[in-house]
Amino acid sequence: MDWALPYYAVIFTSELREENADYSKMAAQMEELCKKQPGFLGMDHARSEKGITVCYWESLESIANWKNNALHQEAQHLGKNEWYKSYSVRICKVEKSYGLF
Amino acid sequence: MDWALPYYAVIFTSELREENADYSKMAAQMEELCKKQPGFLGMDHARSEKGITVCYWESLESIANWKNNALHQEAQHLGKNEWYKSYSVRICKVEKSYGLF
Repeated sequence: MDWALPYYAVIFTSELREENADYSKMAAQMEELCKKQPGFLGMDHARSEKGITVCYWESLESIANWKNNALHQEAQHLGKNEWYKSYSVRICKVEKSYGLF
Repeated sequence: MDWALPYYAVIFTSELREENADYSKMAAQMEELCKKQPGFLGMDHARSEKGITVCYWESLESIANWKNNALHQEAQHLGKNEWYKSYSVRICKVEKSYGLF
């Protein structure tokens, strides 16, 4: 089923300037690293024109720790300055959840 | 930029049993209809293995109204019973937002 409420979701959307091997390598690295962070619950990802990654976390503190991770900071810097045409980060409190899991 | 905080996000993820024309037609119809609902702010969608649709709304009331829309109810029924192998709906309060829009 799903995680105990309330938990947090970070919705990250992005449009790439262009797909490139460096970006793909870093994205895969970040995914691996993210999954090892304390408080990480889960992740969904899909890409069409836009990419959407949703990460689920136990607390705002676990989100802040991941944002401040040194390797992640480097990736954020490259994302802003080289890879993304546009991006958004939304930090959300999940209040209700249902479905067919 | 972004909408005034706080607003709400509905994160819908799904895995299809198989892609089919009926599903694609209904999905396009639902997208059009959704955008006309009172309180609708915006939508992002991407599909790889999983589909992720995030809709943004002014209030919980606008989300409830859309959930109860008669045509949407029909689509939900078909989704559960015919199209989706799995799906999840998460209703979230957006507490913070930033990016390069």
